[in-house]
Amino acid sequence: MSNPMKVVIIGGVAAGPKVAAKVVRLMPDAEVTILEKGSFLSYAGCGLPYYVSGVVKEQKELMCTPVGMVRDAVFFQKVKNIRVMGQTEATKVDPAGKRVQVRGRGDSTESWLDYDKLVLATGGVPVVPPLPNVKLDNIFTLHGVHDAEGIKTVLSQDKARDVVIVGGGLIGLEATEALVEKGCRVTIVEMLPQILGMLDWEIAKLVEQHVESHGVKVLTGTKVESFEGSGRVERVVTDQGKLSADMVILAIGVRPNVKLAQNAGLEIGTTGAIKVDQHMRTSDPDIYAAGDCVECVDLLTAKPCYVPLGSTANKQGRVAANNICGGSDTFPGVLGSTVCKVFDYCVARTGLSEITADKMGYEVVTAMAPAPDKAHFMPAAKPLLLKLVVDKKSRRLLGAQATGPGTGDKRIDVAAMAITAGMTVDQLANADLCYAPPYAPAMDNIITAANVARNKLDGYMVGVSSMEVHRMLADQEDFVFLDVRGPAEYEEVRLPGSTWIPLGALRGRLDELPKDKEIIAFCKISLRGYEAALILRAAGFETVRVMDGGIAMWPFEKESRL
Amino acid sequence: MSNPMKVVIIGGVAAGPKVAAKVVRLMPDAEVTILEKGSFLSYAGCGLPYYVSGVVKEQKELMCTPVGMVRDAVFFQKVKNIRVMGQTEATKVDPAGKRVQVRGRGDSTESWLDYDKLVLATGGVPVVPPLPNVKLDNIFTLHGVHDAEGIKTVLSQDKARDVVIVGGGLIGLEATEALVEKGCRVTIVEMLPQILGMLDWEIAKLVEQHVESHGVKVLTGTKVESFEGSGRVERVVTDQGKLSADMVILAIGVRPNVKLAQNAGLEIGTTGAIKVDQHMRTSDPDIYAAGDCVECVDLLTAKPCYVPLGSTANKQGRVAANNICGGSDTFPGVLGSTVCKVFDYCVARTGLSEITADKMGYEVVTAMAPAPDKAHFMPAAKPLLLKLVVDKKSRRLLGAQATGPGTGDKRIDVAAMAITAGMTVDQLANADLCYAPPYAPAMDNIITAANVARNKLDGYMVGVSSMEVHRMLADQEDFVFLDVRGPAEYEEVRLPGSTWIPLGALRGRLDELPKDKEIIAFCKISLRGYEAALILRAAGFETVRVMDGGIAMWPFEKESRL
Repeated sequence: MSNPMKVVIIGGVAAGPKVAAKVVRLMPDAEVTILEKGSFLSYAGCGLPYYVSGVVKEQKELMCTPVGMVRDAVFFQKVKNIRVMGQTEATKVDPAGKRVQVRGRGDSTESWLDYDKLVLATGGVPVVPPLPNVKLDNIFTLHGVHDAEGIKTVLSQDKARDVVIVGGGLIGLEATEALVEKGCRVTIVEMLPQILGMLDWEIAKLVEQHVESHGVKVLTGTKVESFEGSGRVERVVTDQGKLSADMVILAIGVRPNVKLAQNAGLEIGTTGAIKVDQHMRTSDPDIYAAGDCVECVDLLTAKPCYVPLGSTANKQGRVAANNICGGSDTFPGVLGSTVCKVFDYCVARTGLSEITADKMGYEVVTAMAPAPDKAHFMPAAKPLLLKLVVDKKSRRLLGAQATGPGTGDKRIDVAAMAITAGMTVDQLANADLCYAPPYAPAMDNIITAANVARNKLDGYMVGVSSMEVHRMLADQEDFVFLDVRGPAEYEEVRLPGSTWIPLGALRGRLDELPKDKEIIAFCKISLRGYEAALILRAAGFETVRVMDGGIAMWPFEKESRL
Repeated sequence: MSNPMKVVIIGGVAAGPKVAAKVVRLMPDAEVTILEKGSFLSYAGCGLPYYVSGVVKEQKELMCTPVGMVRDAVFFQKVKNIRVMGQTEATKVDPAGKRVQVRGRGDSTESWLDYDKLVLATGGVPVVPPLPNVKLDNIFTLHGVHDAEGIKTVLSQDKARDVVIVGGGLIGLEATEALVEKGCRVTIVEMLPQILGMLDWEIAKLVEQHVESHGVKVLTGTKVESFEGSGRVERVVTDQGKLSADMVILAIGVRPNVKLAQNAGLEIGTTGAIKVDQHMRTSDPDIYAAGDCVECVDLLTAKPCYVPLGSTANKQGRVAANNICGGSDTFPGVLGSTVCKVFDYCVARTGLSEITADKMGYEVVTAMAPAPDKAHFMPAAKPLLLKLVVDKKSRRLLGAQATGPGTGDKRIDVAAMAITAGMTVDQLANADLCYAPPYAPAMDNIITAANVARNKLDGYMVGVSSMEVHRMLADQEDFVFLDVRGPAEYEEVRLPGSTWIPLGALRGRLDELPKDKEIIAFCKISLRGYEAALILRAAGFETVRVMDGGIAMWPFEKESRL
């Protein structure tokens, strides 16, 4: 090439630097410029909660390469041959003229920068609700380095005893954990009836109980109306009353930053994010976009979705760079795979939740599989609660959710692979996954879950959700709620309204059970509950169901030993 | 059914009880009998090393259900409605008469047991080499509960200071760890040039170095010829000299126990294990087999293989039971997925190794990806060394190997799913895996590895193995071995014969490098080595390669700071 290609990238946090690095690798002669309006480059935004909590000790660790080099403008120029214009805002894109108007901090006028290919990596902006007094001091979002520094400053001054987190999503929960570790009394206020809207209600409820066990107050179905205070925030006013607060974290979500794209006349998708094709190309053939500012395709439903994640930004950046350099690479889409550490729990999910699959018209079969995450005789084994969402017609896996102290991310990654490959639960059940006692049970949790789904699909197991049982109990419906656990387990904890016959005694005590009533069997995890149901059905009991997930996944109150 | 089906199962450890439990669930009226010649039922054989080390405290934990019920004959009868005939050996199968000859311990004569369906779950037997004095006291295998008890007795008498492990496979390494934890001085003697033959040499070498860092002596390429001692073993005689030994563990492998099958005229496969179809049916339509006694199909090559594992036994047992009960279920095969804890390392693999793929005629591209297993700024992040084996023609993943302190099992499970689905590395590189700093880097290790493979497949990166570089150095070939790491890293550790120019300085120091010699670039993980190679190629250097895996995966000696 006689004229080196000019590539201008707007945004220097995640997708932007990735595009830049890959472009100079493929085209060492290219003139690559990153425009970053802030002063921090290529930092790990996802690490901010861990910087607030002190798990990550220094700000610069978030900006280093794995071998400890700080990714600043000098690094980019010297090591990567990439020009970085920091504290420089792109104020306008002129697609016809193939140029970007920029203004550096302190500049009195704008100037123009020509490009052959432009990349929008403008990211997302945290949603700040237009509530009265939302600008009071000590009300933060947790999106950039400045937010984290602001929060840390308040913490260091010992001025944040009571903290209210507005929003019970991923960022809200990560912020919660960080602030509890810093000694704050934290209240989460969530408008919806549950935290973590990406999970089904009963899984989210199990997480909520865990959060509460760490002293956090969780107020779901509660709407923040305004803030009160003089100078700094003192109270959060909700539709359920006032909460005192020394600090507030707004964690309502992120929306794509599309202002430049919109003004340049680029197509915006139905989700409000920049529309791109599989090549990460916008509606202008010389303008690419990647990261938190773009819309993705859901791999399962083929519908547009907005799931801003650092992992996706990196993949998209690579695809954009390959195409800028003349290749033909595609980014197929996402499944909404997510994982989050919530105190001692690993919370993860991929694909469709039950409620979403229902809404989309799938006939859904679910499987609940609570089990130790390693061979149960290993002292390091911890409970892992899995839920699968399966399409009854095709027997394909649609989604998976995991929670509990056990290793959930591994099983959700396996589920994501199964969904991507269009696997049925029958195929998943025979997957050759690694086994050794320190890593998995002989039947891996996801394989057990797939087998539970198969038992249901094949009509051997008729399940009923804990929510439905809870409703039936509340409505005082006439059924037998049959607990088939052993004496020691029954002594320890019981479900209200249950009748107790241990599985081993069931065959000899069938006459104690009425044949004209429905029986709902359960145990700790509902494997013995399933066996009980099969015994009862063989003995002529006609309506027998098994409660999904057993006591291990019961999200309501239990009766404990006094 | 007027006449309940009689199902007789020979073998009560893993596959047998699984078949039994599933059959009674599907056919509650079936008369199911398990014949077990030993006195222990349904125990976790894979847990024995952890029982020897004391991680698992009591023998009965290996025989319990997850809620602590001991799976003995009474349990099987009462809870499962399965008859167990313990200490009862099946001495003969009469397929024509559909009956099994049995003899209980202490019985003076045999008797016959009729069956409608027979299941052979006769397991494997540990290989005991026919060496002189192999019957001396304190020479054990580690296969059954009795072996573990024998080893524990010797340990408890403080009579096992020096232990020789014969065989450096999975069981040998698990036994090594257990015995080091009990304070023994352990030597592993392996006949082959490497331990862990399922791994490629250089990955196995990294594991070997880790084992040696725990004070274990590893003698590869060493053949045991005999044992010496009076009464109990005192010395192991090898072709390289004598080793003193208070105890010896024979961990050479397991062969399928096919005596009954063979005598009954059932077909035996080329691997020496019982041949079954995908329904787990033997050559006799009324006889099924499952577990360590049967031959599997390799999912990738469609060739027969023998990979005895508890995970596979359980899956096969379910399939056999479904078919016995009139269903049509299939077990497709295995990939040889394996994981093993070796001190602080997780060692895992799936699919084909490079050497096997080579032998099978694939044109292989490999990718080495050493990286932290979590976001690198998280203190809990640990190094994980990944190797992928890829088919150049189809770009499909053929195999994966992992070692290091990081979480390898998760990535190998993902690889196993990708191989099962026939995915290319391009598809794998865009998989939507879970990301959050406590669980993975933004680009998961397996995705980075897939991208390294793509860079090679697309011709951007020309790799050279550490073994080849080591040979070139030994042969004093004329090339530049270019280290492009930073000063602090270079100060810490260096490779012999290398020339040092940090990446950031490379563009300004090109004239120091000869254009007529080959340059092999590397860094810690070979990402900067790759960038260096691209810079050099762009500057007109014609023969530039990158050393796969960098210093992190260099399996030979290094020069450390004095």
